[in-house]
Amino acid sequence: MEISKMTRLISLVKEKKPLIHHMTNVVTINDCANVTLAIGASPVMATEIKEVEDMIQLADALIINLGTIHDVVFESMLHAGIAANKKGIPVILDPVGVGATSYRTERSMELLEKVKMAIIRGNSSEIHTLIGGTGGTKGVDAGEGSVPSIEIAQQAANAFQCVIGISGKVDVVSNGSKNYFLSNGDERLTRITGTGCMSTSLIGSFSGVTSDYLGAAITGMSIMSLSGERATKHLATDGGIGTYKIKLMDEIYRMNEEVFAKEVKIHEC
Amino acid sequence: MEISKMTRLISLVKEKKPLIHHMTNVVTINDCANVTLAIGASPVMATEIKEVEDMIQLADALIINLGTIHDVVFESMLHAGIAANKKGIPVILDPVGVGATSYRTERSMELLEKVKMAIIRGNSSEIHTLIGGTGGTKGVDAGEGSVPSIEIAQQAANAFQCVIGISGKVDVVSNGSKNYFLSNGDERLTRITGTGCMSTSLIGSFSGVTSDYLGAAITGMSIMSLSGERATKHLATDGGIGTYKIKLMDEIYRMNEEVFAKEVKIHEC
Amino acid sequence: MEISKMTRLISLVKEKKPLIHHMTNVVTINDCANVTLAIGASPVMATEIKEVEDMIQLADALIINLGTIHDVVFESMLHAGIAANKKGIPVILDPVGVGATSYRTERSMELLEKVKMAIIRGNSSEIHTLIGGTGGTKGVDAGEGSVPSIEIAQQAANAFQCVIGISGKVDVVSNGSKNYFLSNGDERLTRITGTGCMSTSLIGSFSGVTSDYLGAAITGMSIMSLSGERATKHLATDGGIGTYKIKLMDEIYRMNEEVFAKEVKIHEC
Repeated sequence: MEISKMTRLISLVKEKKPLIHHMTNVVTINDCANVTLAIGASPVMATEIKEVEDMIQLADALIINLGTIHDVVFESMLHAGIAANKKGIPVILDPVGVGATSYRTERSMELLEKVKMAIIRGNSSEIHTLIGGTGGTKGVDAGEGSVPSIEIAQQAANAFQCVIGISGKVDVVSNGSKNYFLSNGDERLTRITGTGCMSTSLIGSFSGVTSDYLGAAITGMSIMSLSGERATKHLATDGGIGTYKIKLMDEIYRMNEEVFAKEVKIHEC
Repeated sequence: MEISKMTRLISLVKEKKPLIHHMTNVVTINDCANVTLAIGASPVMATEIKEVEDMIQLADALIINLGTIHDVVFESMLHAGIAANKKGIPVILDPVGVGATSYRTERSMELLEKVKMAIIRGNSSEIHTLIGGTGGTKGVDAGEGSVPSIEIAQQAANAFQCVIGISGKVDVVSNGSKNYFLSNGDERLTRITGTGCMSTSLIGSFSGVTSDYLGAAITGMSIMSLSGERATKHLATDGGIGTYKIKLMDEIYRMNEEVFAKEVKIHEC
Repeated sequence: MEISKMTRLISLVKEKKPLIHHMTNVVTINDCANVTLAIGASPVMATEIKEVEDMIQLADALIINLGTIHDVVFESMLHAGIAANKKGIPVILDPVGVGATSYRTERSMELLEKVKMAIIRGNSSEIHTLIGGTGGTKGVDAGEGSVPSIEIAQQAANAFQCVIGISGKVDVVSNGSKNYFLSNGDERLTRITGTGCMSTSLIGSFSGVTSDYLGAAITGMSIMSLSGERATKHLATDGGIGTYKIKLMDEIYRMNEEVFAKEVKIHEC
């Protein structure tokens, strides 16, 4: 993966301002909207089943995030996903908490059967659950699994024929044949809610301007990790996670080609 | 419109602390609650159809925001709106995303048939849609229309016999006979989600203490634009939209008669 | 109540990272998740009735917050509460807005009949309503009652056989026999939305690591009030409630045994 391909995406999203339709959870929905705006794209968040197909006609990508799913919104997600496939725009899945309850696991399986995903991003136990593993998701946080993320990512990429992103201390992205480690980041990213969901919103934003979904996933996840790293530099000694979250959003907003090219740490493996 | 009328509203809302019932979207609901508190009013956000009429009995104004409407909450909105009309408190409509899908357009028309609005605030394509235009709403953001906002505002004010506020680079407020341009603001207001919704919450807060809805709309929209302008002054060179949003809330909280009178830019046209 | 018991809880929650299942309102849900992470616990926020019992099996405590209840989510809350009682984990109730509408009052009574609470935290008019008083809840804010909070707390503690926390200028906590005044705090805590809900999230976090619910309630409420007090020290002269909310979260994140022991103001009465 050449850096120039990714820096090009950073400019392209600001030029094209793709419309990213989010069907997401009510915990981090505001953060998802703001991060989408921060990177230069445009968010919309409709869930009524009677309008999702119309909204898909305007959208450049669809994000489905299972964070607070219930039966009513799940039906709408299915509808939207099928419409997105039909139109040919990418669908990005964030299987929040899958593995924690059988309801979540079953709904995600149903979704994967009926909707073709372009990219799936989650933590290792969520993605492991999708390929039949028992990763021990603890609520919405990753359990400690024994299978390396790289193996999980590659298997899942092959199983669902899509790009897989696994967030962790080191992020992993795979399209089944090529695998990448992304090693920017900061521990504080796990101490605020929504950094995973926001990472998915960034991926979705980039996937709205390219058919190179591998590049979109790497760029989106790297920007979140790199911004999380850079945010610590602006944190005064009295700073806690309140300030950290604000500085993180600032860094995402200010991310540009030069900083990205200079500081991003991506390794093919 | 005399400035003294508006500065009087700034004091009055802090004295009377009106209760502003919001039936709003799940994306910016927290921001709406905080901005209502920041200006000195008191927010409440109930949606269950079995309690909205009771809540209206306690409220001084009702805000209906269509950002994430679905059939269930829409029924409650209708109930609440009719109860508010019966009680004689103002209803303020924020037709978020109207024009983007036929579902939204139809629901807003149904609402306008059954509930008398005191004030409607939106962007130009949303308001244009309400009077039968095709403004080309892109998701929840304004499309680029060919009809000047001033014409749209005046027509809509006459059509719905209420005050219309249109947010844009220059805001426009009309009651059908008198028209005003509000020219404070900053481009960053479009780079964070919820500034439109928060503007409506400010309008709602002022409409809870006066029957001069034209004054309430001008004051609410001006405070948002002026605060957005002032927030940039406190933005360090490393500030992005994360910090900007916080400074914006600070400025709204700190707005007073003196600053408003000195810096607000309102022109009758 | 010895201070050492409480400081022990501050360490224990960071060691054990209890999973706190929230069934809460959509206004402050993001703040509740972040405050739970800030204190060292782990939040989860599922509401679908088909999965709440499964989620309870993973959880260390359940918070039920009535802020934006409706019939569908209320059924799920009942299910979750009964499952939590059966499993033996504490249930913490935040009766937001009870007394404002008969719907809320009736639902809270139904909940109290069917689910045994470990702790209930609210403002004086909400708690007064639960024991049959008419405290005059104004929307979701406390009305001005004539009955002292200490009497209300003690009566409610005996009526529901649980710990009661009442937030106010001075907080009151009672288990029916012992009563405490918590006198840290700052007026600004009432000028941002969610400080009550966040206080409940802190109580829930501590109740996930101890069966001393009196200690959990005092520690959680004191940390909110003390952090609110400390946040003002870091507020620049141009700071408003936007910045205040961020500093508040910072202070909660940075709270430690030493600061707590030195600055907390708790008096048995």
